[in-house]
Amino acid sequence: MKNIKIGLFGFGVVGEGIYKVLSQKPDIGVEVNKVVIKHLDKERNAPITLFSTDPAAILDDPEIDLVVELIDDAHAALEIVTTAIKRGKSVVSANKKMIAENHTTLIKLSKEYKVSFLYEAAVCGSVPIIRNLEEYFVNDKLKSIRGIVNGSTNYILNKMDENNESYESVLKEAQEKGFAESDPTLDVEGYDAAHKLSIIALHAFGKIIPYELILRKGVTSLQPFDFKYAKEKGLVIKLIAKCKTDESGELNSLSVIPEFIDKNTTLGRTNLEFNGVLIESSLADEQFLYGKGAGRFPTSSAVLSDISALRYHYQYEYKKGTLEYLPKNEGLAKFYVSFNNDYVVDNSIFDKIEEQYNDGKRTYLIGMIQWQKLQKSFILSNPNISLISSN
Amino acid sequence: MKNIKIGLFGFGVVGEGIYKVLSQKPDIGVEVNKVVIKHLDKERNAPITLFSTDPAAILDDPEIDLVVELIDDAHAALEIVTTAIKRGKSVVSANKKMIAENHTTLIKLSKEYKVSFLYEAAVCGSVPIIRNLEEYFVNDKLKSIRGIVNGSTNYILNKMDENNESYESVLKEAQEKGFAESDPTLDVEGYDAAHKLSIIALHAFGKIIPYELILRKGVTSLQPFDFKYAKEKGLVIKLIAKCKTDESGELNSLSVIPEFIDKNTTLGRTNLEFNGVLIESSLADEQFLYGKGAGRFPTSSAVLSDISALRYHYQYEYKKGTLEYLPKNEGLAKFYVSFNNDYVVDNSIFDKIEEQYNDGKRTYLIGMIQWQKLQKSFILSNPNISLISSN
Repeated sequence: MKNIKIGLFGFGVVGEGIYKVLSQKPDIGVEVNKVVIKHLDKERNAPITLFSTDPAAILDDPEIDLVVELIDDAHAALEIVTTAIKRGKSVVSANKKMIAENHTTLIKLSKEYKVSFLYEAAVCGSVPIIRNLEEYFVNDKLKSIRGIVNGSTNYILNKMDENNESYESVLKEAQEKGFAESDPTLDVEGYDAAHKLSIIALHAFGKIIPYELILRKGVTSLQPFDFKYAKEKGLVIKLIAKCKTDESGELNSLSVIPEFIDKNTTLGRTNLEFNGVLIESSLADEQFLYGKGAGRFPTSSAVLSDISALRYHYQYEYKKGTLEYLPKNEGLAKFYVSFNNDYVVDNSIFDKIEEQYNDGKRTYLIGMIQWQKLQKSFILSNPNISLISSN
Repeated sequence: MKNIKIGLFGFGVVGEGIYKVLSQKPDIGVEVNKVVIKHLDKERNAPITLFSTDPAAILDDPEIDLVVELIDDAHAALEIVTTAIKRGKSVVSANKKMIAENHTTLIKLSKEYKVSFLYEAAVCGSVPIIRNLEEYFVNDKLKSIRGIVNGSTNYILNKMDENNESYESVLKEAQEKGFAESDPTLDVEGYDAAHKLSIIALHAFGKIIPYELILRKGVTSLQPFDFKYAKEKGLVIKLIAKCKTDESGELNSLSVIPEFIDKNTTLGRTNLEFNGVLIESSLADEQFLYGKGAGRFPTSSAVLSDISALRYHYQYEYKKGTLEYLPKNEGLAKFYVSFNNDYVVDNSIFDKIEEQYNDGKRTYLIGMIQWQKLQKSFILSNPNISLISSN
């Protein structure tokens, strides 16, 4: 079998890791021909002749079969990926934002040009969720997928719970330890989780969901008051990315919302920077995949798996379809809403309030809210209100 | 694409489940043409014309592309599977004993006749461990695989721990609830786990290990005394199937031995009838797969995944090899050994004893034992001695 020749965009920790593994293991049959980076003046642990700042050095080289795209910028990534595909090159990418926002275009292009476009590393690092949804759970009717898919946020929630500390002070510590970005917005507001959820929903249910229609509320408004409530009930708070069908089996809602979880369950025990995904299906019952969702080695592992699958011309079949779809958001669910007393929340969002409590400073309300009402509610965007799913 | 035509051997809960799913979902493109069973007189939830007691009704039918073998008897299963392969039919099997004892023959035959031979359901039911080892962890250097792969035994250990009860009384309860067979030997003595471990080791390390060389000790000799020790240290006892490399990366030992596990770890929390497999690799770090390892639906789910993969002519590539190999069993490990005082155990098995304790009735010793010594030791087979790995 002829060697695969790779062009690498980006030489951060993951890019360098992949370069290292591939050069140390020639038997894999994959060689890195060229690496395109932004700045040539940084010192690199690889021969200088390998590098270029010109994307054309990869995209115009007919020798290169495969583009591995590992840059942060989603716009630049899209440009690179679409050009590569149009030149008949297969692509491996870890850019969840770029993928989630361009499903339809990218799938159409890769079919038209008959190339593979793989992105296991974009969702939960080394946890092989996409491959398993594509290959393993094809005939099993899925009911829901619930996942902890953002390690930074999970680390922060875990520490807030353990140390009884405010979001701000835990964030600072997490940033110092390298578990959170200097601008953590994408993670802690749930954008990153929503991108991953959108990719999961496509492979699990064959539906492409407009990203804005994923109900999303991050963790920045959560207070020690909320964690105290959770602790008293033996619960923990996790940011859960969830897609769920209705009784007829149709995809009903997609959400990234903090959720109370029994601490003695698989998701409840997914702590620190770990990721866990729970697949609920008719036949296999509950299936749980757990591992490191980010970081140099786990991400490299996922990228390498994709590269290696390409030696066998693997491509996603999208067997469940690629239909653009608006989630129905029918029915209602139980939520916990809390806010300080200097703040007034209109109770009418609730169909029915089952519990309310006030400690003189802060109030919580628990009751049933219709998904469709929640979707239009200011609660999702208001930083002074905590919202926690409570089923 | 032309429909796949299946011949089914066995119509127990799994066989019937698969027949049902396939007849309710014609879009899968798979139909059951014939079912061979032992007794025609039992009532079946399917048209009587579907059934036969004659294997030739399937094996001699050139229309049938795929044989799904779901019978208990390993000898009869081998006869069916080898005949089917020789007639150019692909095979899906759930018979771990048959597979583990005939790796070399079956792989050779299926290569020679260019058919697929798949068996995801043979290892941990719905947990997609074989597929992930084959496809996903190909380039990642694996260090060890440790799994709870027998649900009956795990259920029994869990109940012994929870209720402080003897093996005998818990077994009785488990049998009444259908969690243990009337003859539980294969499960509780670790034979079943060793069969599964042998299949795992083949796909993880590319080695075929003579079944007798897997160090094996079941759970029937464990006493409340042993569970008391575990509890005091925050540990639980699990029957762990384990294959482990040495520092040079070569497969060193395969064992199915009870093990003390921190109860706050992924394996420590794999309770009741659940299965969990922990893959330790250089890149992905720790990857954990968890789900139901047996039972009607989980097993059906795995069989259906294999059937569905055959629509795309999937076959195992055995990319890590299929070498017959004798484990080296080098080095030593820490073990806990306990026995009643009317019994004498020769201490010389230990290289070094680190702890010993006697409560007037029973003794435990903890110390380092060489794998090679353990392999030849009567401790493995003696029902009066508890052996627990203690690393």
